[in-house]
Amino acid sequence: MSQKPEAPNVPAAADTADDIDIIRARMMAAEAELLERDHDDDDRPQLNTPEEIEDFALQDDYALNPEYIELVVDAADRGDGMRLRELLDALHPADVADLLGFLSEDYREQVIPWIPASALAEVLPELDDDIREEVMDTLRPGDLAEVLQELDSDDAAAVLEDMGEAQQREVLAAMTASDREAMVTTLSYEEETAGRLMQREVVAAPIFWSVGDTIEHMRAHGDDLPELFFDIYVIGPTHKPVGAVPVSLLMRSRREVRLEDLMEPITEIQVDMDQEEIAYIFGKYHLISAPVVDDGGRLVGQITVDDIVNIIQEESREDILALAGVSDEEGRGSTVFEVVKSRLPWLVVNLFTAFLASSLISVFSDEIEKLVALAVLMPIVASIGGNSGTQALTVSVRALSSRELTTTNALRTVWREVRVGWINAGVIALLLGLGAGVWQQSFLLGVTIALAIMINITAASLAGTLVPLTLSRLDRDPAVASPIFVTMVTDCIGFFSFLGLAGIILL
Amino acid sequence: MSQKPEAPNVPAAADTADDIDIIRARMMAAEAELLERDHDDDDRPQLNTPEEIEDFALQDDYALNPEYIELVVDAADRGDGMRLRELLDALHPADVADLLGFLSEDYREQVIPWIPASALAEVLPELDDDIREEVMDTLRPGDLAEVLQELDSDDAAAVLEDMGEAQQREVLAAMTASDREAMVTTLSYEEETAGRLMQREVVAAPIFWSVGDTIEHMRAHGDDLPELFFDIYVIGPTHKPVGAVPVSLLMRSRREVRLEDLMEPITEIQVDMDQEEIAYIFGKYHLISAPVVDDGGRLVGQITVDDIVNIIQEESREDILALAGVSDEEGRGSTVFEVVKSRLPWLVVNLFTAFLASSLISVFSDEIEKLVALAVLMPIVASIGGNSGTQALTVSVRALSSRELTTTNALRTVWREVRVGWINAGVIALLLGLGAGVWQQSFLLGVTIALAIMINITAASLAGTLVPLTLSRLDRDPAVASPIFVTMVTDCIGFFSFLGLAGIILL
Repeated sequence: MSQKPEAPNVPAAADTADDIDIIRARMMAAEAELLERDHDDDDRPQLNTPEEIEDFALQDDYALNPEYIELVVDAADRGDGMRLRELLDALHPADVADLLGFLSEDYREQVIPWIPASALAEVLPELDDDIREEVMDTLRPGDLAEVLQELDSDDAAAVLEDMGEAQQREVLAAMTASDREAMVTTLSYEEETAGRLMQREVVAAPIFWSVGDTIEHMRAHGDDLPELFFDIYVIGPTHKPVGAVPVSLLMRSRREVRLEDLMEPITEIQVDMDQEEIAYIFGKYHLISAPVVDDGGRLVGQITVDDIVNIIQEESREDILALAGVSDEEGRGSTVFEVVKSRLPWLVVNLFTAFLASSLISVFSDEIEKLVALAVLMPIVASIGGNSGTQALTVSVRALSSRELTTTNALRTVWREVRVGWINAGVIALLLGLGAGVWQQSFLLGVTIALAIMINITAASLAGTLVPLTLSRLDRDPAVASPIFVTMVTDCIGFFSFLGLAGIILL
Repeated sequence: MSQKPEAPNVPAAADTADDIDIIRARMMAAEAELLERDHDDDDRPQLNTPEEIEDFALQDDYALNPEYIELVVDAADRGDGMRLRELLDALHPADVADLLGFLSEDYREQVIPWIPASALAEVLPELDDDIREEVMDTLRPGDLAEVLQELDSDDAAAVLEDMGEAQQREVLAAMTASDREAMVTTLSYEEETAGRLMQREVVAAPIFWSVGDTIEHMRAHGDDLPELFFDIYVIGPTHKPVGAVPVSLLMRSRREVRLEDLMEPITEIQVDMDQEEIAYIFGKYHLISAPVVDDGGRLVGQITVDDIVNIIQEESREDILALAGVSDEEGRGSTVFEVVKSRLPWLVVNLFTAFLASSLISVFSDEIEKLVALAVLMPIVASIGGNSGTQALTVSVRALSSRELTTTNALRTVWREVRVGWINAGVIALLLGLGAGVWQQSFLLGVTIALAIMINITAASLAGTLVPLTLSRLDRDPAVASPIFVTMVTDCIGFFSFLGLAGIILL
């Protein structure tokens, strides 16, 4: 009996009863699988049209549906490229970027080739930094250049700035001369300044034009205009912006009206202005877009509010993480090592300040030996002082960054903090003194701890306000390092005042 | 000799030598004052035109110049109303609001009457809540109604919602019927939802209109349109939005093109959606404006990105303050009592958790009595554990609020935190064990504290991630109360593991 070579998974012709059994078994397995699939289909909605897929992918709150992510993973496991493309095609680029953030590195590699080239351009600026690098490494410089040329200059620069130097040079070389020149100029500005954030594409009109002139110009040069714009900047003879006409105002004005009579005052952004400042200005004046000018006051680009939204999110994230002693930005895709690098340094600094507090305690070893209750109670004084300090500190850091706290009202703010501290200290001292006194059956111990907490909360109020104010005066970020300073102060003063007073009052 | 009655400060006719001396003295004083004034003028720039005043008032970073605030205070002290009006007139309403925030209550009362009525409408929505109440109390209901009718419905509602019920009723009664109806509807939506945030003024066009139809309609009904808009919503037969045409696209398209062929997909906002979610959607999709729909999917208003900027700032402020144990919003104008109310409750909770940790220590009184070094070193273990926990916690809270942390990657995130914890713990344990061992001249003490810190940092990593994840699962704000829980865990485990291990290893 000759056994024919079998192609995998293809039923062979039935020669013998054995073979027939094998085939029967296979058919039953296949049937079972089919039934199971049907069952699966019953659980899940039919997902064939892009609308159905998008509705399924996004939950009510526009977060990605974990079941959708499973669909993608399943398709990748099956190697079903067409299904992957279908699934990816239906999503907004921001959601595709979000999806990539949720996938593990292996799955990302499988999914990326199925993102259509046109969508890839819009996905890139949305990605977390480390994932973006990963994606870019899979593309050839020529393809990357083409992708970037489809973007507005600010988005393209954001992608370029994260590349290694060699890759950046190759990609620039593959661009057209004018695009390359634009990119090189943009990249010559400092990171996190207006020059980097702005898009160079603006709509500008000379001051002597009428509404009709402007509309005709826009219809004729539609292709050179930015994809989306909200204001037309009116420029004087030396290319200096002198006003702006919102598109919605232009649109409802009569054709013969002159721009000069329509225009509204502008808030100019200097090309070297820091992004935090820009965000502050946009928030304060409710700006939608603002012209960017160079040293000579000439219009060189514009910043639009949609970019500002992301900066505000980023800056508040930096503040909040700095206050917790996390130095670098950490994202979903950060490796364990990156996270360690961003957190360990502050823990080491904390180790030194903790040793400092410790050595203060060791001065009072004799007192503790005589009265162990001191060791039992001393962490309470330190802990509550630390919390008061953190409260005052956080409020001050926020007030500084929103510019509600300045030299004008610094003294008044510190004075208010001190009074708040006294009231809080009074209430807490009463509770703590009573609690400790009753617990340890000692009136004098209660008095001692009450006095210590009053001293420490007062110190906490002062440190929590003065440390960030001083850092800000020295032009340093008031959020960074402040918490370590403040808790060092409250720990040391807490232990010292409690143990010191105990030595005087109790022993 | 008859003495004539003298009008104050008016030189009397010189009758005698004495009188002449008096007059001479007065003239010299006046001359000196004039000289001094001249001198003052030399120091300060000439501030006569509105442009000069505005340039002087705003520093490079658009924060208010303290010297400008002094000018206002000086003018108020002199009772120089005309100068006050000049100084206030030159500023943007947002800057006037800012100025009022920096002034004390007495000065505010003097300054407010000099703000022109037209500007007041725009200043009101910019004010801190408590200052706004103060300002509104100085206005009659009729005047207030007039001021509010000048605003877009979202801004007017924001002002109305903060009034007492009686005042609100009076102001509403003074409005025109249609404005009143609009306000009552807006106020019927929950606070912090789309219904409150949206402006009811939108530009909508039926799907069968052409570009030309739309522009003509806008020119004809210019007065009824919102002051500023970015998108024209295309609506189907049942008033459901089916797409949007950006104004900048409409403007450069030919008149005969149909809206149906121009329109872009929209992201609809449900009228009862929470503002935090809305901010997330705007940030994710870089939206400029979005249509708000009711339960039936009908267009009822729009939300624009400039309102979102303020919400993002507000939400991040809430997060950061909640993490520091500050419950209510505190502003520049908050009284000492308000600040105490927002901070004292958490300090009291902290008092109880600190007592808990303390009673754990008291279990080990005998050990401490035998070896005081334990009392000296134990705060180090608790402090570093607390800091590790705060790091993990803050990163998790941020990731949850930006939806980078969801059920999909929760397990992976926790696992990463634990590994980060182990590495950090290893390094810190080594340093701490060495330091403590050398300082206290005991190898075993070094080993004990090293082991304890490894246990505590691991616990901190778990608590820092699991506490906010659990709160978020229970639909509670993960930032509120988390820090208290987490430091309670790290304090208790820190003291317990160190003192417990010491009992086993050392004694």
